[in-house]
Amino acid sequence: MPLPSRLIEKAVDAFTTLPGIGRKSALRLVLHLLKQEKSHTQQFAQALLDMREGILECRICHNLSDTPECAICTDLRRDRSVVCVVENVRDLMAIEDTSQYRGMYHVLGGIISPMEGIGPADLHIDSLVQRLEAAAGEMKEVIMAISPTIEGETTVFYLSKKIIPLGISLSAIARGVSFGGELEYTDELTLGRSIIARIPYKET
Amino acid sequence: MPLPSRLIEKAVDAFTTLPGIGRKSALRLVLHLLKQEKSHTQQFAQALLDMREGILECRICHNLSDTPECAICTDLRRDRSVVCVVENVRDLMAIEDTSQYRGMYHVLGGIISPMEGIGPADLHIDSLVQRLEAAAGEMKEVIMAISPTIEGETTVFYLSKKIIPLGISLSAIARGVSFGGELEYTDELTLGRSIIARIPYKET
Repeated sequence: MPLPSRLIEKAVDAFTTLPGIGRKSALRLVLHLLKQEKSHTQQFAQALLDMREGILECRICHNLSDTPECAICTDLRRDRSVVCVVENVRDLMAIEDTSQYRGMYHVLGGIISPMEGIGPADLHIDSLVQRLEAAAGEMKEVIMAISPTIEGETTVFYLSKKIIPLGISLSAIARGVSFGGELEYTDELTLGRSIIARIPYKET
Repeated sequence: MPLPSRLIEKAVDAFTTLPGIGRKSALRLVLHLLKQEKSHTQQFAQALLDMREGILECRICHNLSDTPECAICTDLRRDRSVVCVVENVRDLMAIEDTSQYRGMYHVLGGIISPMEGIGPADLHIDSLVQRLEAAAGEMKEVIMAISPTIEGETTVFYLSKKIIPLGISLSAIARGVSFGGELEYTDELTLGRSIIARIPYKET
């Protein structure tokens, strides 16, 4: 599709680098920006720049945060005796949305996937173990909220070998989440129940 | 949905100001940006800022352009004896995509719509009439490529009253485009044929 302007061409190319945005959608977004005031585009761009520049990773749980320690880790009303282990921040947000869980989190930053060359050392597993060891007295339970895929099961198995020796009980979210399903797309009710009806982890 | 960060909140809000992007898609785009290098977000934002700041409207046809006169108006290989009148730049691009038309364009910037308070004075109609008058000798035909809606028909009728007295023949794109349909979403073949098989405009 020939575009009337190099400037538009570049802006369209920029939008198509985002997931799920093709050339036609990108053009629609660009023409929308052109219909608005210049200040709208400036505010839009600035919000993204501020976000990308200012965002931090919580040094405790690896959640995204505006501050060195995130809003959940610094919330004194939350239950410090339980940690929910998730693959990524999207899954953390999905569980928060259910309002069924008031403990802490630990974001792994991925799951073990030999196919993609992701091993335990690439994930925030050491920091989880250190965290559990440091809080050995008050820590009662670790909940595995990992998508029930083959890679997810492998990750849970690997983690269980590290966590069970610490004398902390280990559970996994209930299988209300369909097999092979993605946590992120599960409806809030099912996901909330799966946290409540979590089952003790059994070594296989 | 509570977000872990004000910075993310603002970036999500920024994306949701764009058409067709809801909160969930916006969050997905923001998290995608966070997974990329900072330089990616900077380039993305800069492309939009450059585009919004630098883009001009062609002083002849009102197409979008990097220069005071657009790439089509300055292209000497194009046929200056025929002008295709379109509602907006998207429709111009859609016709260019068919590669069936090698004449000039005139972008109205909308269509007459009493419901939305858009009258002839809000559109680039005066500049079209002046342009046709100035080129009275060499101008042979004006093609109306306006979506066949009620507002479109009203606009074509209004324009016909201005153009026919100039002794320039007036045509409308063939009705291969379905009634009530949007030009922009018509497939290239149909739209291309509708330009070739255009029919002389008859006063009703």
